[in-house]
Amino acid sequence: MTTTHSRQIVLAARPVGKPRTSDFRIEDAGVPAPKQGEILLAVRYLSLDPYMRGRMEDRKSYAEPVKIGGLMTGEAIATVVESQHPAYKAGDIVLAPTGWRTHALSDGTGLRKLDPTLAPITTGLGVLGMPGFTAYSGLYLIGKPKPGETVVVAAASGPVGSLVGQLAKLRGARAVGLAGGAEKCAYVRDVLGFDVVIDHRASDFAAQLAAACPDGIDVYFENVGGAIWQAVLPLLNRFARIPVCGLIAQYNGVDPSVTTDRLPATMREVLAKSLTVRGFINYEFVPDHHDDFLREVAAGISSGRIRYREDIVEGLENAPAAFIGMLDGHNFGKLLVKVS
Amino acid sequence: MTTTHSRQIVLAARPVGKPRTSDFRIEDAGVPAPKQGEILLAVRYLSLDPYMRGRMEDRKSYAEPVKIGGLMTGEAIATVVESQHPAYKAGDIVLAPTGWRTHALSDGTGLRKLDPTLAPITTGLGVLGMPGFTAYSGLYLIGKPKPGETVVVAAASGPVGSLVGQLAKLRGARAVGLAGGAEKCAYVRDVLGFDVVIDHRASDFAAQLAAACPDGIDVYFENVGGAIWQAVLPLLNRFARIPVCGLIAQYNGVDPSVTTDRLPATMREVLAKSLTVRGFINYEFVPDHHDDFLREVAAGISSGRIRYREDIVEGLENAPAAFIGMLDGHNFGKLLVKVS
Repeated sequence: MTTTHSRQIVLAARPVGKPRTSDFRIEDAGVPAPKQGEILLAVRYLSLDPYMRGRMEDRKSYAEPVKIGGLMTGEAIATVVESQHPAYKAGDIVLAPTGWRTHALSDGTGLRKLDPTLAPITTGLGVLGMPGFTAYSGLYLIGKPKPGETVVVAAASGPVGSLVGQLAKLRGARAVGLAGGAEKCAYVRDVLGFDVVIDHRASDFAAQLAAACPDGIDVYFENVGGAIWQAVLPLLNRFARIPVCGLIAQYNGVDPSVTTDRLPATMREVLAKSLTVRGFINYEFVPDHHDDFLREVAAGISSGRIRYREDIVEGLENAPAAFIGMLDGHNFGKLLVKVS
Repeated sequence: MTTTHSRQIVLAARPVGKPRTSDFRIEDAGVPAPKQGEILLAVRYLSLDPYMRGRMEDRKSYAEPVKIGGLMTGEAIATVVESQHPAYKAGDIVLAPTGWRTHALSDGTGLRKLDPTLAPITTGLGVLGMPGFTAYSGLYLIGKPKPGETVVVAAASGPVGSLVGQLAKLRGARAVGLAGGAEKCAYVRDVLGFDVVIDHRASDFAAQLAAACPDGIDVYFENVGGAIWQAVLPLLNRFARIPVCGLIAQYNGVDPSVTTDRLPATMREVLAKSLTVRGFINYEFVPDHHDDFLREVAAGISSGRIRYREDIVEGLENAPAAFIGMLDGHNFGKLLVKVS
């Protein structure tokens, strides 16, 4: 191959609060030749996702943190450039945990081939990828909405929230979405077809939410944390389910102006209303449910019943700024970086 | 019948923080004759339970609050004194939602006949009653301990906690109990057979708990709330289950000295460890599981594998003081009032 030069983005410093671009560093690297059993991948699209903020902390979570000077972790759509692996050939399109870089060697671990005829390949990082399966598994396996029930989800124009609401509708539930700003709200209502959308920046947000949920809330899909939970809590019905897949509002630190302990009120509602609060990482459900997910959601995309939106940034060097902006809700749709 | 005089305890005032005896009032009343379809009950034992503190608040929970001047709600073991109801005859022993009083009329609603040959009748308010079924349903249906897993429960000498630990042992799990003071700790360890017991009043309580759970905590049966949760939280394993049946530590109000918001840390662990936090009131499980409970626990009592302890106070007039003491952990075993 003619490629001899690659680039990668490493963690330069652990962020304090909001990450800054100086917490990342772009480095040049060579391109090693694949040995027997290996393949060389050229990254086409890198996915940027909120969970990556957690990996920047020096705190044990469900996964190891990124080391200082270490490659930022992440999933990508890549093309096989050169293969010494029997299962792959040059030109194959794969979903791969490459991290934030232009090229990667792989022995096949964690790779999944994508069928470019099924749907646009970028969907493998979004509506047909990890965010989509997070929405599907959290809503259907934990939230379990019944016809006529009310499902509330925040970040409703984002890759997870947008599918949560659309899947809720497919099960006959009411979908109430929260989004930031008029443009995103219009998209959630008019394109995605949620029953109600509320701008979470509105000063009377809590009152609007109450008005939008006259029969209370049966499923609150928690992907943001923070202030929205305080508005949701009093509206939850008996036996409501709260799948928790993300807490983006507190990833950069918690609001220091809150000097009351909000835990007792939450626990009181958990008890009084027999709530189920269930954290999850999508991959616990992969073995039993991923095939069903691909079948159902791919069919929904084909038929036009499921819509999605991507926000594509050009160039690996722009990944840090795009990631930082995402944590403040600046993206509109699934955030991807076009690498090559 | 010769009885013409009865007594009852009503809510005189809503407590602010800890209840005082002046929040209750004992009143004299007559004894009405049962009409067709009714029975007259003489209360023998009244049960005092932490949930009653919630009913004293003017706040909608899973049940209506007691009104000012209204009868305190509660369950009792009673003898049928006179019956105009085809299903009951004088001398029958029943479990009945009489409230805090010496005599009650009933049309049979909510009554359950007790078989005095199965176990001592007082067990119908404790280990074979609501507290026992709370332990059974919360542990087995939500906690689902597997052999070798670690189950932690507070108030381990009390009617719920003591059965939680013993049932955990019957399923092959390790039982770690928390109790207050040397006498209760000795009982939990030596009589109930928990693997480890820790005095929650010890200054190094959190360190002792960590040492007692070298493999982490798989099930934390939450029946107290408050400070213990803070010690439990960092020890919870991935996929740990937290049945929440009571929060006695916050029933009298929350600790005003806590000026940090503890909710974000709890939610972070819920997410990072895929925790299940599930509030419940035992009766959601009654239709499907109460028969199994009676069979299994009654057999355990008969065989001596399940032990229980009662703390019996004499005289209805002493119920308020006994109830107030229970909220501070002064009882030792299931708290009952011997009424007649």
